[in-house]
This record gives sequence, structure tokens and C-alpha cells, in this order.
Amino acid sequence: MNYLKMSKNELEAEKKALVNVYEDYKSKGLSLNMARGKPSPEQLDLSQPLLDSLKSTDSYYSDDGTDCRNYGGFNGILECRHFFGDILGVSHENVFVGGNSSLNLMFDTISCFMTASLYEDTLPWHDVKDRKFLCPVPGYDRHFGVTGYFGFEMIPIPMNSDGPDMDMVEKLVSEDESIKGIWCVPKYSNPTGITYSDEVVKRFAALKPAAKDFRIMWDNAYAIHDVTDTPDELLNIMDECKKNGNEDLPILFCSTSKITFSGAGVAALAASNHNMDILMKRLKYATIGYDKLNMLRHIRFFKNYEGILNHMQKHKALLAPKFKVVIEKLNSELKDAEIAEWTDPNGGYFVSVNVLNGTAKRVVELCKEAGVVLTDAGATYPYGNDPDDSNIRIAPSFPSVDELSQAMDIFCVCAKLAALEKLI
Amino acid sequence: MNYLKMSKNELEAEKKALVNVYEDYKSKGLSLNMARGKPSPEQLDLSQPLLDSLKSTDSYYSDDGTDCRNYGGFNGILECRHFFGDILGVSHENVFVGGNSSLNLMFDTISCFMTASLYEDTLPWHDVKDRKFLCPVPGYDRHFGVTGYFGFEMIPIPMNSDGPDMDMVEKLVSEDESIKGIWCVPKYSNPTGITYSDEVVKRFAALKPAAKDFRIMWDNAYAIHDVTDTPDELLNIMDECKKNGNEDLPILFCSTSKITFSGAGVAALAASNHNMDILMKRLKYATIGYDKLNMLRHIRFFKNYEGILNHMQKHKALLAPKFKVVIEKLNSELKDAEIAEWTDPNGGYFVSVNVLNGTAKRVVELCKEAGVVLTDAGATYPYGNDPDDSNIRIAPSFPSVDELSQAMDIFCVCAKLAALEKLI
Repeated sequence: MNYLKMSKNELEAEKKALVNVYEDYKSKGLSLNMARGKPSPEQLDLSQPLLDSLKSTDSYYSDDGTDCRNYGGFNGILECRHFFGDILGVSHENVFVGGNSSLNLMFDTISCFMTASLYEDTLPWHDVKDRKFLCPVPGYDRHFGVTGYFGFEMIPIPMNSDGPDMDMVEKLVSEDESIKGIWCVPKYSNPTGITYSDEVVKRFAALKPAAKDFRIMWDNAYAIHDVTDTPDELLNIMDECKKNGNEDLPILFCSTSKITFSGAGVAALAASNHNMDILMKRLKYATIGYDKLNMLRHIRFFKNYEGILNHMQKHKALLAPKFKVVIEKLNSELKDAEIAEWTDPNGGYFVSVNVLNGTAKRVVELCKEAGVVLTDAGATYPYGNDPDDSNIRIAPSFPSVDELSQAMDIFCVCAKLAALEKLI
Repeated sequence: MNYLKMSKNELEAEKKALVNVYEDYKSKGLSLNMARGKPSPEQLDLSQPLLDSLKSTDSYYSDDGTDCRNYGGFNGILECRHFFGDILGVSHENVFVGGNSSLNLMFDTISCFMTASLYEDTLPWHDVKDRKFLCPVPGYDRHFGVTGYFGFEMIPIPMNSDGPDMDMVEKLVSEDESIKGIWCVPKYSNPTGITYSDEVVKRFAALKPAAKDFRIMWDNAYAIHDVTDTPDELLNIMDECKKNGNEDLPILFCSTSKITFSGAGVAALAASNHNMDILMKRLKYATIGYDKLNMLRHIRFFKNYEGILNHMQKHKALLAPKFKVVIEKLNSELKDAEIAEWTDPNGGYFVSVNVLNGTAKRVVELCKEAGVVLTDAGATYPYGNDPDDSNIRIAPSFPSVDELSQAMDIFCVCAKLAALEKLI
């Protein structure tokens, strides 16, 4: 059944059989979506009590007596800064609590450095005409969108099973002063689902960039988002950086978007005192303060770090069967054909599949025609350009298990069909 | 009792008497605050039912069926765009609904134009090294903070009783291409409380700036914030601009910060199609969408435009007596001395007082020593520099009527004392 070892006649026969299966699926007029890392309605239901955690009859005061309905409390209510400090593994004093989107905080961070110097002897990045950013691939399209918008040349860095290719990262950043940063999703990476090894984190923390204002955008989006009982552990980047006197390197981000409500959660960033000074100088003019009532709602709902970890167990219970279906289908339908490889992550929101080189776009197209929407092929690469046309990101969270099972059947047929078209 | 006509002996006697009164107040150890335009707890209480307008058992769908808990709905839920379109007097299609802060949307707007060109043949403002912004004075310190942060030279424009000095505005913008915009609070202006006359709005709409990318930052913060039964009417800037083919000139802002919760309201901006294209291109990368549950809460609470107008009547009932106390105290204590002038606005959040030239800083200092906190003297001018050292912004909303009455007594004594010190 290894396609690569089949004769032309065998391939033709296989294709003929699969076309029939495919046409059958197509005739069903399905509408299934595995495109975005969206929580399912059932996952959102888990946080439904949050909507009652701040009623008109409840106290609207934070622990320090701030009336959370009014202006004030610029960097977030204290208990919320502690809460995110626990999630990110940093002191609350280095935490700023923002609005409903960590992407927004990341965008604001890059935007800040575009017009403000990080040091007296460095330029605002807008004035660095050949500015560049490192982009581990496959990676998160919205990250690439931000640096693309701000005119960075984006340099793809291959992802290994333990994180980005650090030989390449070290070489590039030590040589080129115009490289200003790197995007990282260090735990349950988007989309491969892998977690950076201790060695990779240590090498990040020990970087000696040519650019004094080089920054690591450490998007810890899936810090506590396990989907198996063998969760990954991520080394604390800030602690490691401090050991090297490198605490200005990383800026950490997280949110409750995939914990409570994707559209109405709370986001936070954490950074060294120096980075905070630069960022807060901007934010002080950009806002009087983010939504403190929503911070309060979240704190009342979770109580503390243990509360949020317990809550994540409920997400796991809903997500685990979905990841299982994806992996089972890939194993049963694609393994023998040897035309695809995939990851089997312990957490996060994605399974990354590499189909036969040169067929990813075709697979996505075939799926679409059969009613299954996938993330665009290439989306996981800067400029949408996957040079191998191979990577496809599967997002199993939103559909039901039954829908997912059907969508994966179709995906596997399409992956095989596209491979056969290519091989014949 | 006109200080300016008193003999030295009369002044000395008056001062001696007032020092005694002042020392009396000082000994009371008061703590009163008229510094910021913060709603009072009673005003925030008016919106307390909003906290129950979206319970766990309520529908979380917007009118078009969007699950407001999840991602999506980038430019705000449709009913909320209509709602803010009604407040701003523009089509909902030109409305973007943001987070909890219109200041944040204004900051983002300026930030956008710092690195993105408004037209193919104009430069990002960061690249305009001698960039300038017009700042009607007295004005809003946080506006000046934004353009100050982004390195604009800020040019003060005197405010008249019908708006900014339009002769000066027209002359400057027609001559100097490096002038990129002007800050406006067109209705119940911060701090003078005046509303731009129809003629002023028409002249704004007919501007012919040398800079193609000149923009009017139209901060309609007090669009429906009357405090008397003879409210001001503001001409619709967008309609007027359209008559002149000038619809790209203004960008409109408002929020519910002084309608529902200052810390947890909803803000919006409105602009022409061209301006929206530039701004949305940025915002698409900056966020997946702002907090839709809070938008939904607000819509459920108000139902429609009529609902919000009714709600504003309740604010008026709380604010009107406070403005009355301020004006009464100024009339009874300072009028005859002829050492101060003030506005008597029909709405907004402030009364602007011009004390005797050269004494504003001293008045604020004397007040502080007697336990009354005022906005810093000079804060209503760019760089905190009031050349006459005369303007003081009084914010009557937060204290109770009794506190305010006491604070105003002290303010008037301090204004007179400072004048006497100056005159003697």
C-alpha cells in the first residue's frame, strides 16, 4: 500500500477507486470546518458561569478597594496581575493586564518598537530600512501578519521536533544587526504542537544577538492547554534569561481566549523592567486602563491558579477525543501509503500534517470542493509561501467528534488523491 | 469689592481676613478631589443592571447569529455598529466598534498614520521630521499626551466661545504641509464646555489643508451629555464634509465611558471609506475582534438610541446640581472681585476657570494644601505650558454636592488669596 512503491497501473487503479469514494462524499453536500483554532460551543459552555460571576448585587471592588467600574488601575487589577504572573511564571510586578487579545498586545509591542527606540543607541525599527524578523515554520499566520504589516523581511527558520533550528537562529542573530526578533509559540507550538526542549530554551536565553534591541516574542498561548495525560513541560524562559543577564530578550504573552471566551477573555504580557518601561511609556498614553470588570469576572470565576488548572481539565476532556480521532484517522488511512507525516501533540490546538510535497494546495482545494474547509495551504509560512507545498494545519477543536471523523475521512481521501495525481 | 480697584491697604485687609478663613479650612484636614472627569459612584450605579443584562442563561448570539463568546466579528456586532452610528450621526457601515476606550482608538489612529501612508504620495508621519499638530487651548491633556508621545510639535490654537480660532486654523493648515491634524472636542469641549457653532463646523468641513493627509480628530466624547434643559446642538461634521468632497478629513470617536462604566464601556470610531481602509488594514492584524459580549451587554441594556438618551437624563439629574453649585459659588464668591472668568456649559464634564493671570499654579497649590485636589495648572495646554498661568479645569462630577460645595468655597478663597498675593 506504499504509494511510492506502486506501479503506474496500481496507482491508476487506486486512484479510480478513490475518485468514486471522493465523489460520494462530494454528493453529500457537507459543510465542515477544520480551519481555525476556535473553541467549540461545548468548550465555551464550560465558562458560562463566568457570566454570572459579577452580578449587579456583587461587589465591584478589587482587593485593593478599586471601584472596577470607574477609571484607574492602569496596569490591571492586582489580583489579575498575580494570576497571569502564575501562568507565565514571572513576578506580578512585571505583568501588564490588557484587553481581550494577546495578539493585540503583541501587535502593540511591535508597533511600539517601530517608533520608539529600545535603547539610546538603537533606532526605532521604522528607521531600520532592511529590518528582518525570524519566523519558525510552520508557524502561526497571525504572527507573520503582524511583522508583514510592519514591513519586516521574514526569514523562515525550520522547526524541529524540539523547537526552531537553533544553530540557524544563533548564526543569523549573531551576524545580522537588522534582525530584530523572532516569533515563538514555545509550548504546543502552532501548528506542530511540539514543545521547545530545555536545551532550546537555554539556547534562546543565551543568545548573543548583534542587535542590542533583538527581542523574542514568546507567545505562550497554550501554557496550560494539555490534551493528554502526559503533558509537556516548558522551561521558564525568564528565569533562564536572568541567569545570563539576558532578561531584556523575551517578552511573554498569554490570554484566556482558549480558556474562557475567545471573544471576551483577558490577555496579559510580561517583560523585564527595561522593556516594561518602554512599553508602559507608550501604553500610558494609549489607554487609561483596560476592562477591569472583565478582569474581576475572571478572578471571581477561577479564584486562583489551581482553579484555572482544574478548569483546563474540562477542556481536555472535550478536546482529547477530537485529537484522538484525527490521529487515528491519519494512522489508519495515510500511514501505509507513506505519503504524509504528522505530529501527535500532547496539547495545544493543532495537528500539523505534511502531505506529499507539491500537493498541499491541491488537498485543500479537493477538501473544499467536498465541503471541508481547511486553513489555506501555505498559511503557516510567511507570505503564505510553503516552498514544499506540503504543510497543512488541522484544527480539530470546533467540529463535533462525528463531524471531525467525517471531515478526516474526506481529508485522508483528498491527501491520497492529490498524491496519486502527483505520482501518476 | 473689585480687587483691581482696591487700594493697597484694602488689599492687605482683605488678604488678612481671607488668610484666616483659609487657615480654618486647612485645619479641617479635608480630602476633596475635583481633578479628573470621573463619574461618581451614583452615576455608575445607574448602569448596575447592565451587569445582569447578559446572564449565563441568556442568549449569547448577536442579531446575525454570531456566537459572541467566540472569535470573529472583527468590526463589532452589527447592532452595536448601528448604535454608535446613531450616536455619531454616520452610517453603520463606516463604524468600527473597539474595546473599552476611545482614547485607545485615537492613539491607534495616530499610531497607524505614523507608520502607514494615508495616500500613495504622502509619507508615514514618522518620516515627516517636522510634523506638527494643532491643539485648541485650553484642551484635553490626554490628547496632547498622544501627539506629544509621537513627537509632534504641538501648536496651541486659542479657543473662542464658538470653537477654535478658525482664522488661525485656516491660515496655518493652508500654508504648512507638516501640520497633520487637529484635536477637537466639538461638543461640550474639554474643558471649556462650549460647543462648536455651525459656522465653525462648516469652516472645518471646508478646510483646504496643504497636507493631503491632514486629519481632524473629532472626539465627540460628550455627544449626548447634557447637564441643562437647554442642550447645545452640534452640526454633523461628516455631512458637511461630504458637501465639500472632504469626507476624508474627519475621524470621529465616542464611547460609553461616561454613559455606562468608565472602566468597562464600549468605544467606537467612524470614518470615510478611504480612512477606514487604511485603519482596518492595520486593525485586521492588530486584533481578531474586540469584546463582543460587552457589546452585547450594552445593546441588551439600552435596546436602542432612545434607550441611551433616556439613560442620559438620569446622569443629567445627578450632574445638574453639581454644575449648579460650581457656577453659584463662582458667581457669589468671585464675580465681584473681578479676578476670574469662567464658562457655564450646558453639558460635558468640566467648568473652565481663568483666574488672575500668573496665579493658576498658586491657586492649585493653595487648594492642595487645604486638601482640595485640582487638575494641575497648565495641564490643559500642550507641554503643560499655559503662558498666562491662568486656566484651571474644574471637574465637578465625582464629589458629592456637599463635598463640592465645600471644595468650591476653598477654591474661591484660594483664587482670591492668590490674586491678592499677586496684586499686593
